[in-house]
Amino acid sequence: MAKINENYLLLPENYIFSEIEARIQKFKKENPDANIIDLGIGDVTRPLPKAVIEAFHRAVDEMGRPETFRGYGPEQGYKFLIEKIIKYDYEKRNIELSVDEVFISDGAKCDIANIQELFDVNNRVAVLDPVYPVYVETNVMAGRAGKPTDGKYENIVYLPCKEENNFIPPLPDEKVDLIYLCYPNNPTGTVLTKKELKKWVDYAHENESIILYDGAYEAFIQEKNIPHSIYEIEDAKEVAIEFRSFSKTAGFTGVRCAYCVVPLQAKAKDNKGRKHSLNKLWRRRQAAKFNGVSYPVQVAASAVYTKRGQREIKESIEYYLNNAKIMRKALKKIGLKAYGGVNAPYIWIKTPNGMNSWDFFDYLLENAQIVGTPGIGFGPSGEGYFRITAFNTRENTKEAMKRLEDL
Amino acid sequence: MAKINENYLLLPENYIFSEIEARIQKFKKENPDANIIDLGIGDVTRPLPKAVIEAFHRAVDEMGRPETFRGYGPEQGYKFLIEKIIKYDYEKRNIELSVDEVFISDGAKCDIANIQELFDVNNRVAVLDPVYPVYVETNVMAGRAGKPTDGKYENIVYLPCKEENNFIPPLPDEKVDLIYLCYPNNPTGTVLTKKELKKWVDYAHENESIILYDGAYEAFIQEKNIPHSIYEIEDAKEVAIEFRSFSKTAGFTGVRCAYCVVPLQAKAKDNKGRKHSLNKLWRRRQAAKFNGVSYPVQVAASAVYTKRGQREIKESIEYYLNNAKIMRKALKKIGLKAYGGVNAPYIWIKTPNGMNSWDFFDYLLENAQIVGTPGIGFGPSGEGYFRITAFNTRENTKEAMKRLEDL
Repeated sequence: MAKINENYLLLPENYIFSEIEARIQKFKKENPDANIIDLGIGDVTRPLPKAVIEAFHRAVDEMGRPETFRGYGPEQGYKFLIEKIIKYDYEKRNIELSVDEVFISDGAKCDIANIQELFDVNNRVAVLDPVYPVYVETNVMAGRAGKPTDGKYENIVYLPCKEENNFIPPLPDEKVDLIYLCYPNNPTGTVLTKKELKKWVDYAHENESIILYDGAYEAFIQEKNIPHSIYEIEDAKEVAIEFRSFSKTAGFTGVRCAYCVVPLQAKAKDNKGRKHSLNKLWRRRQAAKFNGVSYPVQVAASAVYTKRGQREIKESIEYYLNNAKIMRKALKKIGLKAYGGVNAPYIWIKTPNGMNSWDFFDYLLENAQIVGTPGIGFGPSGEGYFRITAFNTRENTKEAMKRLEDL
Repeated sequence: MAKINENYLLLPENYIFSEIEARIQKFKKENPDANIIDLGIGDVTRPLPKAVIEAFHRAVDEMGRPETFRGYGPEQGYKFLIEKIIKYDYEKRNIELSVDEVFISDGAKCDIANIQELFDVNNRVAVLDPVYPVYVETNVMAGRAGKPTDGKYENIVYLPCKEENNFIPPLPDEKVDLIYLCYPNNPTGTVLTKKELKKWVDYAHENESIILYDGAYEAFIQEKNIPHSIYEIEDAKEVAIEFRSFSKTAGFTGVRCAYCVVPLQAKAKDNKGRKHSLNKLWRRRQAAKFNGVSYPVQVAASAVYTKRGQREIKESIEYYLNNAKIMRKALKKIGLKAYGGVNAPYIWIKTPNGMNSWDFFDYLLENAQIVGTPGIGFGPSGEGYFRITAFNTRENTKEAMKRLEDL
């Protein structure tokens, strides 16, 4: 008799964005003329850079001619793209990587969801709280999380990031094996300095832990002392896997291209204490379960690294960060405390008068037709907070802030 | 201390195609002028249909304009593509499906690798032998296979398909929970009649098993009484999940688009005997671990269903099947027994004089510079067989057969 993986029954019924969507649909039905401005889901709105579009077309044409057609590519991605990633995203920050340390994928979500497969089901997982739900849910599915109580899973270590600790996560007070870090942070929009990040690399060395470092929002970093890659920290390669994406960097949310770095030095042990290369395990996983990213998409992504591509993505990032600036200013004016939005497209609002997250969601939807994401959806320490994003148009961003000021 | 998933240590060291590649590279190094013809890996060579190219370009252009730009799409795929799949691939065979039963993905390999996550780790798995290695390896990684001995995993039930049983798999003589079937078959190129397939649907009903039906080569079916979908068998929806791909149908191996059908009726039980919808579990999995297929790729795939697209893919399929015909004829002439190649792009050769598969591989590489896939790479019952594919050019196919005839 086929039996289900019972761990799935431990998942929350609704993925947070589905619940939001349901509430919006209900509101729309009751208010068909409402002009809702969505500052909720973190999706880009600016079109693909022209350099990317041109490269994309060129590669599509190649696929239409027998002499340039390409079938299966390497599961780990084409060298032409990997070499550009290494040169522009790492070497310019004095980080050396070899071609076999970078793996192209169809999304950082997929990579970060799949990476836990390499590890023992009894490994102890630590996450920041609030946290991108995917880290937790994929460990629930794998049976690593245990049972849920009060919004927390019994076997997961939650590291609260709140106003009180300036959103800097405390080191775990017990030994953990896998640590998910996301900087610039989703959802709080905050960052870690090199000094703060070094504490984590040191912790990982001391405890033989592995850091799963989600750098999907790296392109938004503006301030000087903020690390763009965890490998800017000495000896991080032995203890960290890094995830990056073209989604937010270059508008690829609908195009799908990302990559992860699994350094050759990164190792974990088996039950007999023998060390194994995580790079080799990941390569094996990808060979058995993945078939590479669409060739035209990889060509399109490589155009991000042309001079013109770099200029164009910079313009988009600036556009979004100017939205963030407008929002931070407006929030300050009306007396709402807000964090992030300087090195990240996310602003983390403290709800007024201790209102809970979903009440604030409903309040904004009903009174200003603004949609954001309730902080509680990202974990228990998100209660009393609310995430808005800088990804909407300038016009909508301004209109949304005007509505807030008029409330 | 981070520990690895020890199941990975039970995997064979090399994925079969990597081992083949290594032997080819060695031969090339020693024989730099050799003109090798690759009839090994099952990759297409004909360019994308013109209808597909045009749609692809159109969608890329949409991504370059703010008013038509698309960010995140639905994880399960765009309705415009799902509706075409239902209409053309199913309704025309009198199979009704609803939009929420079809899930678009970036590859049948990914889907079929990931689907086992929905099931209990103690479920008993049956595979045909020989078999596409992905079915076995993904179950090894999940801890469902047990230890390997003599090319078999202790907890996997192998169903031998050999000349002696006309490559028709016997029903398992013990209860199994998950059954991987692939028709038209990779690697043997053989097919099942409706009557034979019905035996499996009946078995699944009797034993509450789930059939994972890989129909990646469906487009190659030419003969009349061969089912194109497992849902042509009555009541199969309750016990079968079907996987399809644009890879071999429309030359998408490098473009990446596929789909799977998880019927609303398909259910499996939990430990308390309560039934759960596999559709719901898969939807939950995809929401947490996947972010949809590239929008331009989905538009390109939907052009496969235009009149022109259908005509163009038919031409390519015929091209490959004519290659198969040429090969079957040549093999017959030189006295080699061969199967498949009528409703499939694969021909399964019985090696001469009881030669083993890898010896025959080396013999052909060294004496005719022809590469194929050793049958043993697909499982113990593949020993003494050898797979060649119809995906090369007409010219290379003819040249390869000439070399065989001249041996």
